[in-house]
Amino acid sequence: DPNLKVFSLNSNPDLAGQIAEHIGIKLGKCIVSSFSDGEIQISIEESIRGSEVYVIQSTCEPVNQHLMELLIMIDALKRASAKTINVVIPYYGYARQDRKARAREPITAKLVANLLETAGATRLLSMDLHAPQIQGFFDIPVDQLLGVPTLSEYFLSKKIDDVVIVSPDHGGVTRARKMADRLKAPIAIIDKRRPRPNVAEVMNIIGDIQGKTAIIIDDIIDTAGTITLAANALVERGAKKVYACCTHPVLSGPAIERIQASAISELVVTNTIPLPEEKKIDKIVQLSVAPLIGEAIIRIHEKLSVSRLFN
Amino acid sequence: DPNLKVFSLNSNPDLAGQIAEHIGIKLGKCIVSSFSDGEIQISIEESIRGSEVYVIQSTCEPVNQHLMELLIMIDALKRASAKTINVVIPYYGYARQDRKARAREPITAKLVANLLETAGATRLLSMDLHAPQIQGFFDIPVDQLLGVPTLSEYFLSKKIDDVVIVSPDHGGVTRARKMADRLKAPIAIIDKRRPRPNVAEVMNIIGDIQGKTAIIIDDIIDTAGTITLAANALVERGAKKVYACCTHPVLSGPAIERIQASAISELVVTNTIPLPEEKKIDKIVQLSVAPLIGEAIIRIHEKLSVSRLFN
Ligand SMILES: Nc1ncnc2c1ncn2[C@@H]1O[C@H](COP(=O)(O)O)[C@@H](O)[C@H]1O
Ligand SMILES: Nc1ncnc2c1ncn2[C@@H]1O[C@H](COP(=O)(O)O)[C@@H](O)[C@H]1O
Repeated sequence: DPNLKVFSLNSNPDLAGQIAEHIGIKLGKCIVSSFSDGEIQISIEESIRGSEVYVIQSTCEPVNQHLMELLIMIDALKRASAKTINVVIPYYGYARQDRKARAREPITAKLVANLLETAGATRLLSMDLHAPQIQGFFDIPVDQLLGVPTLSEYFLSKKIDDVVIVSPDHGGVTRARKMADRLKAPIAIIDKRRPRPNVAEVMNIIGDIQGKTAIIIDDIIDTAGTITLAANALVERGAKKVYACCTHPVLSGPAIERIQASAISELVVTNTIPLPEEKKIDKIVQLSVAPLIGEAIIRIHEKLSVSRLFN
Repeated sequence: DPNLKVFSLNSNPDLAGQIAEHIGIKLGKCIVSSFSDGEIQISIEESIRGSEVYVIQSTCEPVNQHLMELLIMIDALKRASAKTINVVIPYYGYARQDRKARAREPITAKLVANLLETAGATRLLSMDLHAPQIQGFFDIPVDQLLGVPTLSEYFLSKKIDDVVIVSPDHGGVTRARKMADRLKAPIAIIDKRRPRPNVAEVMNIIGDIQGKTAIIIDDIIDTAGTITLAANALVERGAKKVYACCTHPVLSGPAIERIQASAISELVVTNTIPLPEEKKIDKIVQLSVAPLIGEAIIRIHEKLSVSRLFN
């Protein structure tokens, strides 16, 4: 369909290229560069009048740069008479600032939703939003894809015996349960407790992990503090082997060092966020979500349900 | 008035401090930092419920970072029940992207206006907006201060004889005229022409500059190409000495090198944009607009006219 156009910005060109390939079209032509003073300059090099446009951009580091690229691109598309502007944000940055945890905090995840709508986005496709409430921050349709199918498929293909799926906190139990269903495995939960104020947290494990292969699953791994402590606790309490996996490999600060030093034997992530060379270590396996996102774009464009992609 | 609060973000803390001092209050307490992954974290450390808040932030380089800081701060202030949120943007970045010069370009200056309003700004105070039309991009009140009074005062104090004020292009004539009125001097205009396509531009000078001291005035000096070519042309055509001045010293890329190598004997700028150490060269004099902005804030807060600050 010549009316379907997919554009990539600067955050994740490899993923965008794979998505276009899956759909069977070429990426739209645009140049996203900077003026001498660092202001973003966008030039769309083909007509998009009346088109259904999909723009692929993760708001990963440098998050403010990537977000502004996206907002300016949406503005340009709107002024160039795109029929619909579908933003595809595989990794939605600022998702953890989704509530006022303390007085006078911003709710940046909601601010970003408002900014995207103000710029002119007409639909959002994202993956594993840190809180499901973020869908409600938008007044435009939001489709959310999950990393679980892609991650589960990888572990299924490994044919591991006696697996237990571990949620690193109580918030992640639903996700762990979804993976456990696919792997026909039981679940366990890490129950972090601070016995008294100013005393180190204790890692309590709910569920049976003795002699099993544990797979810890989370949505985001950022500094990797939680996940590496969890892995070490699992081994201490008798797990035979520990894998970890997540959808969004933020991996900032000490993350790589911690993962290297930890009991995690392999970390499986997706490519919602690209891994720069220095983060491509042997322990990390990266799976592509391009087929999933490509399929979702085809289904949205053909006005079919996207929810069957979850099951 | 305890209801008047002034906060500084990270672009221009020195200017903000001077503004608070001029007003005779302390800067509001807030911490603007970054999480490990580069996401902005803002924490307002005092109650601002019911307050009239002024936030000082130039959207200079790194422009996207500074703009997001401002948007997130506005969001936090709004949710903390500020009565009014007055954004003070001494230098308004993206102002040159104020129209579609080519097909499918964004109009980022308008986008930024919409983003600020969406976040919750209730008023804007800025200086020398690159195009006066930018005021019309907003649906909230906008006050614009000018650099001309501050710059003119400096040159008046030098008591230079036989001055001519030079506009580097036709767009800047109104500004040059304002300065000329204050210095009781005539004006001249640089009339750049490209005789034929792909032939170098010719610098034509309209007005009498022979044996005079020329002061070139512009709003923004960015890469300093225009201004240094103009200065050299003025000297070639018989100007005795050439000063240059502007409100906003963007000074990106080759600017400092070009200024050093040019016929400009002194460049006078304001502190709407701070000069990092490597740009603090002998030829550059920086004047503070803190008294002007401080006075404007006092007048806005007391609901008096700001326009008399121009005259
Ligand atoms: N980029 C970030 N890095 C680390 N912590 C964050 C970030 N953004 C927000 N937070 C904090 O993380 C907490 C929310 O995380 P969670 O409990 O996992 O939903 C809040 O207290 C936020 O202040
Ligand atoms: N940050 C920037 N640096 C250099 N040129 C810019 C910048 N932003 C916009 N422009 C271009 O400058 C032109 C407008 O400048 P002017 O004619 O001085 O108003 C437009 O063609 C813009 O594409």
